[in-house]
Amino acid sequence: MTAGGETLTAGVIGGTGFAGGELLRLLAGHPNFDIEQATSRSAGGKTVGSVHPNLRGLDLRFSDPEDLASVDVLFTATPHGVSMGQIDRYFESADTVVDLSADFRLPEAALYDEWYEGHDAPEYLEKAEYALPELNRENLPGAELIAGGGCNATATMLGLKPLVDAGVLGPDTGEVVVDVKVGSSEGGAGGGAASSHPERSGVVRPYAPISHRHEAEIGAYLGLDVSFTVHAVEMVRGASATCHVFPDGPVSKGDLWGAYRGAYEEEPFMRMVSGGGGVYRYPEPKAVAGTNYGEVGFELDASNERVVVFSAIDNMMKGSAGQAVHAANVALGFEETAGLEFQGLHPVGSP
Amino acid sequence: MTAGGETLTAGVIGGTGFAGGELLRLLAGHPNFDIEQATSRSAGGKTVGSVHPNLRGLDLRFSDPEDLASVDVLFTATPHGVSMGQIDRYFESADTVVDLSADFRLPEAALYDEWYEGHDAPEYLEKAEYALPELNRENLPGAELIAGGGCNATATMLGLKPLVDAGVLGPDTGEVVVDVKVGSSEGGAGGGAASSHPERSGVVRPYAPISHRHEAEIGAYLGLDVSFTVHAVEMVRGASATCHVFPDGPVSKGDLWGAYRGAYEEEPFMRMVSGGGGVYRYPEPKAVAGTNYGEVGFELDASNERVVVFSAIDNMMKGSAGQAVHAANVALGFEETAGLEFQGLHPVGSP
Amino acid sequence: MTAGGETLTAGVIGGTGFAGGELLRLLAGHPNFDIEQATSRSAGGKTVGSVHPNLRGLDLRFSDPEDLASVDVLFTATPHGVSMGQIDRYFESADTVVDLSADFRLPEAALYDEWYEGHDAPEYLEKAEYALPELNRENLPGAELIAGGGCNATATMLGLKPLVDAGVLGPDTGEVVVDVKVGSSEGGAGGGAASSHPERSGVVRPYAPISHRHEAEIGAYLGLDVSFTVHAVEMVRGASATCHVFPDGPVSKGDLWGAYRGAYEEEPFMRMVSGGGGVYRYPEPKAVAGTNYGEVGFELDASNERVVVFSAIDNMMKGSAGQAVHAANVALGFEETAGLEFQGLHPVGSP
Amino acid sequence: MTAGGETLTAGVIGGTGFAGGELLRLLAGHPNFDIEQATSRSAGGKTVGSVHPNLRGLDLRFSDPEDLASVDVLFTATPHGVSMGQIDRYFESADTVVDLSADFRLPEAALYDEWYEGHDAPEYLEKAEYALPELNRENLPGAELIAGGGCNATATMLGLKPLVDAGVLGPDTGEVVVDVKVGSSEGGAGGGAASSHPERSGVVRPYAPISHRHEAEIGAYLGLDVSFTVHAVEMVRGASATCHVFPDGPVSKGDLWGAYRGAYEEEPFMRMVSGGGGVYRYPEPKAVAGTNYGEVGFELDASNERVVVFSAIDNMMKGSAGQAVHAANVALGFEETAGLEFQGLHPVGSP
Repeated sequence: MTAGGETLTAGVIGGTGFAGGELLRLLAGHPNFDIEQATSRSAGGKTVGSVHPNLRGLDLRFSDPEDLASVDVLFTATPHGVSMGQIDRYFESADTVVDLSADFRLPEAALYDEWYEGHDAPEYLEKAEYALPELNRENLPGAELIAGGGCNATATMLGLKPLVDAGVLGPDTGEVVVDVKVGSSEGGAGGGAASSHPERSGVVRPYAPISHRHEAEIGAYLGLDVSFTVHAVEMVRGASATCHVFPDGPVSKGDLWGAYRGAYEEEPFMRMVSGGGGVYRYPEPKAVAGTNYGEVGFELDASNERVVVFSAIDNMMKGSAGQAVHAANVALGFEETAGLEFQGLHPVGSP
Repeated sequence: MTAGGETLTAGVIGGTGFAGGELLRLLAGHPNFDIEQATSRSAGGKTVGSVHPNLRGLDLRFSDPEDLASVDVLFTATPHGVSMGQIDRYFESADTVVDLSADFRLPEAALYDEWYEGHDAPEYLEKAEYALPELNRENLPGAELIAGGGCNATATMLGLKPLVDAGVLGPDTGEVVVDVKVGSSEGGAGGGAASSHPERSGVVRPYAPISHRHEAEIGAYLGLDVSFTVHAVEMVRGASATCHVFPDGPVSKGDLWGAYRGAYEEEPFMRMVSGGGGVYRYPEPKAVAGTNYGEVGFELDASNERVVVFSAIDNMMKGSAGQAVHAANVALGFEETAGLEFQGLHPVGSP
Repeated sequence: MTAGGETLTAGVIGGTGFAGGELLRLLAGHPNFDIEQATSRSAGGKTVGSVHPNLRGLDLRFSDPEDLASVDVLFTATPHGVSMGQIDRYFESADTVVDLSADFRLPEAALYDEWYEGHDAPEYLEKAEYALPELNRENLPGAELIAGGGCNATATMLGLKPLVDAGVLGPDTGEVVVDVKVGSSEGGAGGGAASSHPERSGVVRPYAPISHRHEAEIGAYLGLDVSFTVHAVEMVRGASATCHVFPDGPVSKGDLWGAYRGAYEEEPFMRMVSGGGGVYRYPEPKAVAGTNYGEVGFELDASNERVVVFSAIDNMMKGSAGQAVHAANVALGFEETAGLEFQGLHPVGSP
Repeated sequence: MTAGGETLTAGVIGGTGFAGGELLRLLAGHPNFDIEQATSRSAGGKTVGSVHPNLRGLDLRFSDPEDLASVDVLFTATPHGVSMGQIDRYFESADTVVDLSADFRLPEAALYDEWYEGHDAPEYLEKAEYALPELNRENLPGAELIAGGGCNATATMLGLKPLVDAGVLGPDTGEVVVDVKVGSSEGGAGGGAASSHPERSGVVRPYAPISHRHEAEIGAYLGLDVSFTVHAVEMVRGASATCHVFPDGPVSKGDLWGAYRGAYEEEPFMRMVSGGGGVYRYPEPKAVAGTNYGEVGFELDASNERVVVFSAIDNMMKGSAGQAVHAANVALGFEETAGLEFQGLHPVGSP
């Protein structure tokens, strides 16, 4: 484990993608990291700013992923399936690997057989630690392989975990319906016809009506079978999960407040938002856009014996690059909020 | 009942609102109606086109609601609570009244006591016919008082009714979760701070987390208690309902197709959209924007024993003004699609 | 020339593109056309509705462009350069060809050498008639080859022509600056990285800062050299041209009103919008979205001796498919507004 | 003048408005400021986070503007006309006043007579220093009254000043057309019907066709008469100015690059963006959203002897609150970029 205050070298694999760009932005502003290398298969030799216009001021060019520099920490933001094939090589170049893909986020190889196309390096799964500090902080310090959570799973688990911890919700409770709304950045920088602006604008589109792979994460880490449906809506960044929960027995507003406060009052990036006056009464992706904050809130629907839980994150931040940096901060002993201080904007449009 | 082909005179009360404007557009293009009068409290004397820019070519000025012309059919598009106080007066001016507010859409006064602030003219409730032809076509011919359905209730009921008819769903089935996403036009032309562009843009905002009044309609007409939550999302027109249904026993895709085909194959405005290739695989508000069409589709989630039903309408059309004209067509014996032929646009942005 | 009321057969080449889809929508609702064939290189055998979701109700499948049916009128909506190579073949299949590409819209081959990559069938240029009826109505009746105008050129010329006709503006007047704002549908259905939703959303992007090819059309048909700059902005359909004009001598508001009224008061699709109260005081793409209407208006900036002209159209309609159908109506002796009656919507989002 | 590193107390008048909220965000993250007070007429006693959801973590409540705390620096973000009436009082409470309204940004009372409704405290005009450091850095150190520039004027002047300095453009050059596109936050937090989401969404709306007051600033500080037109477009934050310039004599691309590099290469917040490959080839509001950066670029239109200059800023930042903090940093001897380090996001939607 590294002492706080130290400066480590960092590399980013897959720097032209959206998550890679966010990693570069965060690491460039991080007091404890120096970016040593950013790789790109498609943009080798070009400046980082030629792809990510917000980073035009950054003096850094993409290099070939075949020539890995030796760094302290390697952040990998490649499509699913790449990291599991390269992981030995990664550990030859770095002491710590933080992987943002799905390749190490499930705890067992059998789950990769069930939900993905199997796993090429199952021996690493036991070594991997799930990145989300709100779920797994105690296991992160000193972790060598950190696996970033899925954005939709992150939003959902942040909303439901306090209920699980408080016993309101468990494997034997009734149905849990999770209805997610996400922005177009979830589709990544490539995109096909469905992601073109004329077709994607203004949609409320069921893009994963059933069988979304993030169900597997939620099952693995919360022990819950959830009925999960994801809609694409008009925004670029943001994920909002509405969880409809039917507890077995009676539960009061006070119980719920207690559960959420207990879970999150010490968390530096979690905010409770529920009711009150004004325009922003519940969690909203807009209110956390660009930040590593997560917002959760709820309403008690007495007539239907239902708890409705709202959870909002920026999928590129709390749901991806921000979560990775947060986890690295915890793992390496840095200030937990280092590099993640941005508070977001008001007003802001469709972020 | 009036014979098809005849031309009737029509009046519109509340012509400056969004629904009023849509009524004026539809009636102006309707082969069986001549607009005799459009009233407005705020814009008396001004041209219709000065408020509704798409109607700049219409030679019509708003008049005072105190001076009602005598017409065959009066369409009323006023805020909740107005029509119930004026209904006697309306029937002095017109043979048929089509009310787009909530004032006559529930069948019993007790429901107004429970969900609204009571009812001023309960004696009219028995006389009123619910406007949605897909639910109530047989009772519309000759109806004198037609009560337009709520937009969110309409989207929901179009999605669920085939399951109720087929016995997949009933009062004793398990939880039905309805997660609705709607555009800003639902808030009407007035709007406050929450409706201002900087605050409303790009939101995924729980604006009716629980206890939405449209639950009452769904209970009254489908006999279902649903757990209902409405989110505001970035679009101006459109309502999309995702219904998460847990049938008691096993149900196959074939059963479901049978239920939906049976319900809607003769319906001129209903389209089944479920799966297939291409970009638009499920119902989408974009695909029906500006039209009176409704789209429904579903997926069977075997692992959760869940049916996910998707339903999309234009809240201003199928959810309001279009539904009203459709009902009037049925009531008066006109061609059912008269005035409602517009097919919508592709591509279109955030409608 | 064909007598009004007759029904002709029509074919559409390039039916999967955005303009092709709009042609199919318009022709399907046109009282004088029966669609005989819609071709597509990529979607042969598929239903039209599988590509254009608004046309799901249309019973028509795409066929191979190699097997052209014999029709009365052939509408071609292919990328630039295709029609000029196929034009002989097209006239073997049809009496009248309406081409929506740039292939025949300039009057001289030399202009194709200057602005495009030359012309393959220059012998057809003399035969071709420019489609915009507001500019060229007198030459359209009986035309066999009709060449649709460019969307940005159309918006600009509709704004400036009355000033040219009135002598306020001419080849020797000072600078004319045309600053255009357009929606993403101008880029067509393909689109690359710049058209992907995350990159294209919310832009104010100079996509043709100088040397846009539509300058050639404006020079050819209005005799004006204009300084032309096109920006992509957040909408899918719409083109708005702001023309900054500096007349040689003094000009009054009355002169300007006279010029515009004289030019357009008989035009069925042109609306003057200038000042007044309310929200919509000037031309706006929103107010004409989905329609074949064009709006023009102006302000007189006395302190800068400038006239600012605003012009708004739907680029897919007045700027493309609508213009083509309008021209065909005039050419074939149909009712000028046949098939083009849609009035547009209010409210509507980002169309 | 204050030494860098010191911490000063700051107050914000008008903290519920958009600019006030941005000031609070920036000052809360500024190493040299402690926020002592934020006032609000409408939200006294409420938390800052109840109005600005991104500041939910800030432990601060609005207080009454009648009870001003004594602070080192007072930032005032009130509607035009308020500060000029309160300025004596402000200086009783603070040593330095930074005013974001228009009240002190013009150098002479006569200009207030011409463009506004006169001035109540003309004796302060000479004392006031224009805030934009790129124009007025040398006069800012030690300034006691700093007047923030107008957002549209800022965007325009950042684009044109290098040409004026290089002698390409001057009072006797030909026409300068400035065509501005802005987001809805320019209208402020109040907003009326035209700012409601259904009416404002997706517009290209000429909201200040002529005679915009920012012409006065441009005349005063650049000595140029510009033909100025402002359009509202679909975004919340951002201002983009396209300046069409016709130099008297020949000018080369090299000359232009020289002019812009000379002006801005030492500037910490200015970026040159012109051509190159990729998606973002010119200045774009998206690329600077949330930041204090300004981007400028140009194209040379040889055939029209025109230079087209593009300039993009975030109107709430470089055009308002960010500019104010930047100016205060210079005035007080702080690190120039203190509190303004945020680099912006990629991808981002309609910011």
